[in-house]
Amino acid sequence: MPKKNAFYAQSGGVTAVINASACGVIETARKHKDKIGKVYAGRNGIIGALTEDLIDTTKESAKAISSLRHTPSGAFGSCRYKLKSLDANKREYERLIEIFKAHNIGYFFYNGGGDSADTCYKISQLSEKMGYPVQAIHVPKTVDNDLPITDCCPGFGSVAKYVAVSTLEASFDVASMCKTSTKVFVLEVMGRHAGWIAAAGGLVEEQGIPVVILFPEIEFNQKKFLAKVKAMVKKHGYCSVVVSEGCHYPDGKFLAEQGTRDAFGHAQLGGAAPVVANMIKEAFGYKFHWAVADYLQRAARHIASKTDVDQAYALGKSAVELAIKGHNAVMPTIDRTSDKPFRWKVGVAPLSKVANVEKFMPRKFITADGFGITPKCRAYLSPLIKGEDSPPFKDGLPQYVTLKNVAVPKKLKNFKI
Amino acid sequence: MPKKNAFYAQSGGVTAVINASACGVIETARKHKDKIGKVYAGRNGIIGALTEDLIDTTKESAKAISSLRHTPSGAFGSCRYKLKSLDANKREYERLIEIFKAHNIGYFFYNGGGDSADTCYKISQLSEKMGYPVQAIHVPKTVDNDLPITDCCPGFGSVAKYVAVSTLEASFDVASMCKTSTKVFVLEVMGRHAGWIAAAGGLVEEQGIPVVILFPEIEFNQKKFLAKVKAMVKKHGYCSVVVSEGCHYPDGKFLAEQGTRDAFGHAQLGGAAPVVANMIKEAFGYKFHWAVADYLQRAARHIASKTDVDQAYALGKSAVELAIKGHNAVMPTIDRTSDKPFRWKVGVAPLSKVANVEKFMPRKFITADGFGITPKCRAYLSPLIKGEDSPPFKDGLPQYVTLKNVAVPKKLKNFKI
Repeated sequence: MPKKNAFYAQSGGVTAVINASACGVIETARKHKDKIGKVYAGRNGIIGALTEDLIDTTKESAKAISSLRHTPSGAFGSCRYKLKSLDANKREYERLIEIFKAHNIGYFFYNGGGDSADTCYKISQLSEKMGYPVQAIHVPKTVDNDLPITDCCPGFGSVAKYVAVSTLEASFDVASMCKTSTKVFVLEVMGRHAGWIAAAGGLVEEQGIPVVILFPEIEFNQKKFLAKVKAMVKKHGYCSVVVSEGCHYPDGKFLAEQGTRDAFGHAQLGGAAPVVANMIKEAFGYKFHWAVADYLQRAARHIASKTDVDQAYALGKSAVELAIKGHNAVMPTIDRTSDKPFRWKVGVAPLSKVANVEKFMPRKFITADGFGITPKCRAYLSPLIKGEDSPPFKDGLPQYVTLKNVAVPKKLKNFKI
Repeated sequence: MPKKNAFYAQSGGVTAVINASACGVIETARKHKDKIGKVYAGRNGIIGALTEDLIDTTKESAKAISSLRHTPSGAFGSCRYKLKSLDANKREYERLIEIFKAHNIGYFFYNGGGDSADTCYKISQLSEKMGYPVQAIHVPKTVDNDLPITDCCPGFGSVAKYVAVSTLEASFDVASMCKTSTKVFVLEVMGRHAGWIAAAGGLVEEQGIPVVILFPEIEFNQKKFLAKVKAMVKKHGYCSVVVSEGCHYPDGKFLAEQGTRDAFGHAQLGGAAPVVANMIKEAFGYKFHWAVADYLQRAARHIASKTDVDQAYALGKSAVELAIKGHNAVMPTIDRTSDKPFRWKVGVAPLSKVANVEKFMPRKFITADGFGITPKCRAYLSPLIKGEDSPPFKDGLPQYVTLKNVAVPKKLKNFKI
């Protein structure tokens, strides 16, 4: 029996380092040509598998693949598409098996977050349930840092670094202006359910900067929040607020959903940041500025954490090594063995324990008043933003790679998704 | 007669490199101790002069002053405060003379934008009009890049680099997601009157990225804009929009002023970005993301342009050299002598020709359709973002300096501003 090919796909929101994992997968597979044939990437994630839109990564030079390590975004395209259960949509699984057979695919590497881990887990059961032998390995990726078991998720460390650096820089700015102008700066960051990203803003407190954090894990209390801001401004002359997009009232209503309407009656357009900023202005008259980082935070490869890049690569590499060792239905993990000095190794977790489990900020990571991070949290976060890993620059801009993405000739009929 | 001391102050919105100019002023003054006594900095700009709140920069170590070169924000505090004319508020000018006399100040270095150039020009006339000998030199600074005569303004190159890098990175992100999710990314940038900052987004077009720019210089035409976005998305699958905060309708109404009201009837909270994004969504149903960079763009010293840092320092240095040569009422300028290779030298302009003049984007820098930049504009902008000048990092964060800012003992009575 000829050696099997591998399928690799990127799923969900992309990050600054998901391509570093792709780099780890492809470079490691290339080193084991005796065991693994070609690596086919799905164009736009699992959709590429379903529609037989496969990319032949062997057409890319070693240099191009190596450049993935410093290129943000998903080089093969990503998608938001969750496979239903085998019972609910058998047709899709049958199609995947058809594709795998047609292209001799025996390894399935899926690079994504919680939903993708679930998809990967379903694929891993194909051997048993539908008699097609495929080894499915999940490569963790999510800026939300909400996957269980692993110490952290590739993508998170770089967002955390972006948020910490941005909070630091904007705070220096506000401190300069606060005498006659801006007294409060509000930065809105990602994190619909978990406050890991917002927590990173707290890392600048060690530099004496007053920061108030609004976590999704803590129900928003306007009175307490305003009192906190007032105390900070009274003491320091200014303060910075880092608000998670998922911050909400006790009834579950997001801060961003203030019932704002435009002139045409359309629902509000803004985020949580302008709502929070305006609330402060109404209460105290402080001049404010606000920013919404949005995609900038997760795409900011120029200020990526070296720790994060190294871990992203290592997990891609490990996924291939696990496959070669015969594993199925697993995810390589980051196992932290020491905070100071920071040490970690790669472990492995069964996908059955990863799929559909969300990891929130533990309460002990949040200060008693709910507006800051504790030393425990700092000890956890600090190593994750350590180290810089600047991409190459030319003419003032980072040199990111765009692959050729040559299609594998189709062998099957069209499939409608 | 003993040698005179110098006064230095920072004014208006701070930048990633205004402290590099401060560094140039102070280091150069320290090298000419035979000519210039102490450098006193105004705490919070000109307010520090009026209230006799002076900072003794001689209390700072050479290392601390040298660290200003890589520290964003205004190390001595800035302010938004414009002196009225001599006729309208003679009291303030008399106070300044009192302060200058009390502290033996003969040199006035003012580091700011258009309004500050005006203030500096008024001070420069004190010798003639009020019989107190002081040499006033303006050190240009503004992210808006709208001062005349000088090729560019320190602070602008770094914002331009931030905007270009951010547009590049977010565009890579959207390109990955566009198949099933986000098709349009909107980034709002500064620039109330001039579109220089927004123009920088156009620098990424050379990498094949579809960008639509909305300038304040071009009246907003919704129909044309939507057609442009549609064509871009049709061709590329996605597009990025860079919108200047100053973008407005033919009647002068800003895009950001959409008459949006929150539940309490308060005026809208958002910026131009959500308005533009929603407009596209309404027209075509494209999923969108938007970001507002706000202070992050002007504080982002971590991704500063080396050209910008070098120029900021050079102009601070030159200001002192011009003072020593006996100049008054002038501003050192950047004179570009060649685009490729980029060459520049420091020139000098009379403040009478700088104060109250705004430099807008020339029409020939904007494409015929009004949504992009021309090769002429690219040739102008490209060199300004060139080179990286990373600050030192420790534990994952840039190491910015906070000065001791020791107060000079007061000699005069209080003064109410």
